Amino acid sequence: MIAIHPVVLCGGSGTRLWPRSRKARPKPFLPLVGDKTLFEATLGRCAQDSRFADPVIVTGAAHLEHVRAQIAGFPGARVIVEPEARNTAPAIALAAARLPADAIMLVCPSDHHIADEAAFRDAACAAAKLASEDWLVALGIGPTSPETGYGYIRRGAPLEGGYVVERFVEKPDRATAEGFLADGRFSWNGGIFAFRAGAFLAELARHRPQMAEAVRASVAAGREEDGCFYPDAAAFAAITAESVDYAVMENTERAAMVPAAMGWSDIGNWHALREVREGDAAGNRTRGPVELVDCRNVLVDSDGPRVSVIGLEDIAIVIDGDDVLVTTMAGAQKVGKLAGATNQ
Amino acid sequence: MIAIHPVVLCGGSGTRLWPRSRKARPKPFLPLVGDKTLFEATLGRCAQDSRFADPVIVTGAAHLEHVRAQIAGFPGARVIVEPEARNTAPAIALAAARLPADAIMLVCPSDHHIADEAAFRDAACAAAKLASEDWLVALGIGPTSPETGYGYIRRGAPLEGGYVVERFVEKPDRATAEGFLADGRFSWNGGIFAFRAGAFLAELARHRPQMAEAVRASVAAGREEDGCFYPDAAAFAAITAESVDYAVMENTERAAMVPAAMGWSDIGNWHALREVREGDAAGNRTRGPVELVDCRNVLVDSDGPRVSVIGLEDIAIVIDGDDVLVTTMAGAQKVGKLAGATNQ
Repeated sequence: MIAIHPVVLCGGSGTRLWPRSRKARPKPFLPLVGDKTLFEATLGRCAQDSRFADPVIVTGAAHLEHVRAQIAGFPGARVIVEPEARNTAPAIALAAARLPADAIMLVCPSDHHIADEAAFRDAACAAAKLASEDWLVALGIGPTSPETGYGYIRRGAPLEGGYVVERFVEKPDRATAEGFLADGRFSWNGGIFAFRAGAFLAELARHRPQMAEAVRASVAAGREEDGCFYPDAAAFAAITAESVDYAVMENTERAAMVPAAMGWSDIGNWHALREVREGDAAGNRTRGPVELVDCRNVLVDSDGPRVSVIGLEDIAIVIDGDDVLVTTMAGAQKVGKLAGATNQ
Repeated sequence: MIAIHPVVLCGGSGTRLWPRSRKARPKPFLPLVGDKTLFEATLGRCAQDSRFADPVIVTGAAHLEHVRAQIAGFPGARVIVEPEARNTAPAIALAAARLPADAIMLVCPSDHHIADEAAFRDAACAAAKLASEDWLVALGIGPTSPETGYGYIRRGAPLEGGYVVERFVEKPDRATAEGFLADGRFSWNGGIFAFRAGAFLAELARHRPQMAEAVRASVAAGREEDGCFYPDAAAFAAITAESVDYAVMENTERAAMVPAAMGWSDIGNWHALREVREGDAAGNRTRGPVELVDCRNVLVDSDGPRVSVIGLEDIAIVIDGDDVLVTTMAGAQKVGKLAGATNQ
C-alpha cells in the first residue's frame, strides 16, 4: 500500500465570500459547511485511514495563527511557512523538497468542499498509484456547467484508474466552455494533484530551472522554529510567482488525470455556497436567528443579529461584524469587487 | 385673527416601521425625514408664526422622556400625561377640558409627514375659522390611490373654505376605495381636526356622555407635577377606548371638511417612507454607510454597519441595533406582523 502525504495549501485573499471571509480570516479557516472549517475538513478527509501519512501544511505567516489553532487534532502535522506568497508551484516545491524523494504527495487546496469523502479517497489512491509510476496526476472533476472561471483538462489515452492528459486549457470563454461540455472529454481542473516528490522536482527543474534552484537553496538555508519550518526568505524572494498548472502541468509529458465524482465545489461565491448547504422545503438556507416570510431559495448567514426577510427569492444576506451584504445570486460574482472586499 | 392651540397626540406601538421604530421609541420620536423627528416637525410647523399659541401635548408615561427631550425648543409647551392609552377621543377630550371653552384646538397626530408646511398652515387657518363657528372640522387629503387602510370623507355642500361632511367611511375594501377615487368627492381623513374646545366637549357629551363625564372627573381630580398635568387615573380607567372619528365625527351634525393639498403622508410603512425621502438618479434612498451596485429604488437605512447591495430593486434594508430587516416594497405592509415587531 502506498502512503499518501497530504500537502495542504493554505492562503487566500478573502474577497469572494466577503464579508464573512476577510483578508485576516480567509475562507479556509471558516466553518462554511457544517461545523468544521474548510481547512479542518481538508485535513480530516486526508486522515481517515492508514493510507494517509501526517500532513504537510504550506501557509504564510499571516495565517499561521489560524493554522496552529486548527491543527490541534493533527499532532503529526508539519507546517512550512512561506516567506511570501508565490502562487502554487513554489509552495508545492517547498513541500516536495522537505519530503523524501519517493514520498507520494497529494496536493490539496484547503478552501474547497467535497461532499463524498470516500469517493475523494478512492480517487486519491488511484492518483497515488499513477504518481508512484512517475505520472504527474491531476484529479478531474466532471463539469456540470460551462464555467469560465476554471481550468479544463482534456483526457487522452486511458491508463489504469485514469487517463493521459491530452491538454490543459486555462479559463475558456463561454462558447468554448459550452463546447467542452458537449465534447464530453473535458474535466474541470480542481487543483488537487498527486506527485512523487522527486518526480515533481525533476519536472520543475526541467521546465522552471531557476524556480527549482531557488526553492532548493531556500530550503537548504531554512530553519526550524516553534515547530514550523521557515525557508530562507532571501533565496525565496528571487522566485517569480507561478501556478503549478503553468509551471509544470502544461509542460510535462507525463501529465495524467484521474476522474473524481465526489461532490466537489470550490465555493467560489455566495451562490456556490448556497448550493452546498442544506435547505428547507422552500430552499432557504439560514444560519443565525432568522425569520423568513414568503421567501424562497434565500441564503441568510448572520454572526449574531436577527435577520427578518419578507417576500424575497434567490438572494443572499450576510451579516459579519459591522458589514451587511445583500446580493442577488446573479450578483454574487461581483462581491469581490465591492469596496468593502477590496479595501481590507 | 384666531389663535390656534395645537394639540399634539403622541404615542404609537412601533410596529410598522420596525426595527427602526420600537415600542420604547415609536415613530414620532425618530428623525425619519430630514434631521428633525416627526414630533419635532409637528411642533415646528404649528409654531411658525403668531397664528399659533403654545402647544398642548397629550402623551403616555412611557413616552414622557422622549417628549421632554424633544420639546426643549418649545418652552411654552404643556404636557398632559394620559394614565392609559384610550385612543384619540379621550386624549382630545383631556386637552379640550384643559383649554378655555373658546380656544380653537388644532388636533395633530405626531407621526405624519407634511411636505408643504405653508399649505398646512393655510388649511389649518381655514379650518380654525370654521371651528370658531362651531363646526367640527377635519382636514381632507386628496387621495392619490385606493388605499384600504384610511378613513374617507365624502364632501357635501360648500362652506367658506371647506365643505359640510356628507359622511365618513371607515377603511373601505379595495373596490369601494376605487369607486371613491373615481367619484372625486372623497378625501382621506388625515386625523387632523380643528374644534372649538367647548363645542367638542358639548358634542362629546351628547354622543358619549359617559366618556365626557369620566374625562371631566379625571381632569377635575388631576394634579400638576414636574411641569406636566396628570389626570386622575381612577376616573380615566372607566373610559372605553374609542377614536374621535367613531365617538364624535361620525355622529355630529356639524362635521365639516377643509381640503388640504400639502404633501401629506402617514409614513405607514417602509414603502411609504421611501416615497417621502429624496432619492438619487436611480431612485435609491440611503442613510448610513452604503455601497450600491446595479440597484434601483432601494431604500437603505443603517444605524451604523456598512451595507453593500448588489443587483436589487424595490427593496428596503433596515439595520437597527441587533436587527436586520430586508423586505420587498410589496412586503413592507407585513413588517408589523414579524416576530421582532410583535414580541417587543
